[in-house]
Amino acid sequence: MISREEHNEAVAYSAEQFAAAGIELTAEERGRIEVADFGLGDLRKTGLMLLVYVNTDRYCAKELVLYPGQTCPEHRHPPFAGTPGKEETFRCRRGSVDLWVDGRQITLRPGEQFTIPPDTLHWFQAGAEGAVVSEFSSASRDELDVFTDPRIVRAPVVD
Amino acid sequence: MISREEHNEAVAYSAEQFAAAGIELTAEERGRIEVADFGLGDLRKTGLMLLVYVNTDRYCAKELVLYPGQTCPEHRHPPFAGTPGKEETFRCRRGSVDLWVDGRQITLRPGEQFTIPPDTLHWFQAGAEGAVVSEFSSASRDELDVFTDPRIVRAPVVD
Repeated sequence: MISREEHNEAVAYSAEQFAAAGIELTAEERGRIEVADFGLGDLRKTGLMLLVYVNTDRYCAKELVLYPGQTCPEHRHPPFAGTPGKEETFRCRRGSVDLWVDGRQITLRPGEQFTIPPDTLHWFQAGAEGAVVSEFSSASRDELDVFTDPRIVRAPVVD
Repeated sequence: MISREEHNEAVAYSAEQFAAAGIELTAEERGRIEVADFGLGDLRKTGLMLLVYVNTDRYCAKELVLYPGQTCPEHRHPPFAGTPGKEETFRCRRGSVDLWVDGRQITLRPGEQFTIPPDTLHWFQAGAEGAVVSEFSSASRDELDVFTDPRIVRAPVVD
């Protein structure tokens, strides 16, 4: 669980990072930036902020924002609805992000990208300046994500 | 057909517009910006520049760049390989773009977006400042596009 203050700080930080990356949002979008702490209650260490631009039955596009050193914990996107699971491309826009995919480490800096196959374990951590990362993918169903840490709850709870 | 000079000017303009929009590219990406005049030989009036970030069997992400007043002519993305055809979301990043979809006009400014259903006639024109537009979609097969103007050839020819 995170406090309302932590939530609001994370949204304000995200809005600043989007602006610094030259990414324009509508007022409606600023109002629905999601803050995920994965139920671990230690947002600046483990979590991320995200904004979904579009998520149809066929494709999805999001922006992810991470605090400096913040980690999105290991997970995979399992098969669903007759598909092999979500395939996704991370493209770094600002700062840097270290990505671990099946034990391999890849560092992405602005303009660099990497595509993660479906149903493949991965986790990522922002560098010292934080990160803004565009995610392009097949259809996204966050609620189906399978995390390695059994304590994790994907749906955010704000106190 | 466009001249090598027109091609190079269009690539240089695109690189400037990407930079002005805060969009970082790798050197490899700068080297493969595509210039499409649709075979009409009047690039500044009819055409567009594009960079494909990723195009898998499942999803695609591109950036489009248009000169001020430049038009991408009417076309549709027909069904293929058992799919209903390409579904796409245009998100304006810089400048503005007027989009006509099934006779309806939509103007997109930075941060605004619109999703075009598969197999639906549409065309678009940049405003007076040109445009940078992100395109998120299902899998893209540009060579299958059906244009209303029978003179159009999608594959670019550089003299």
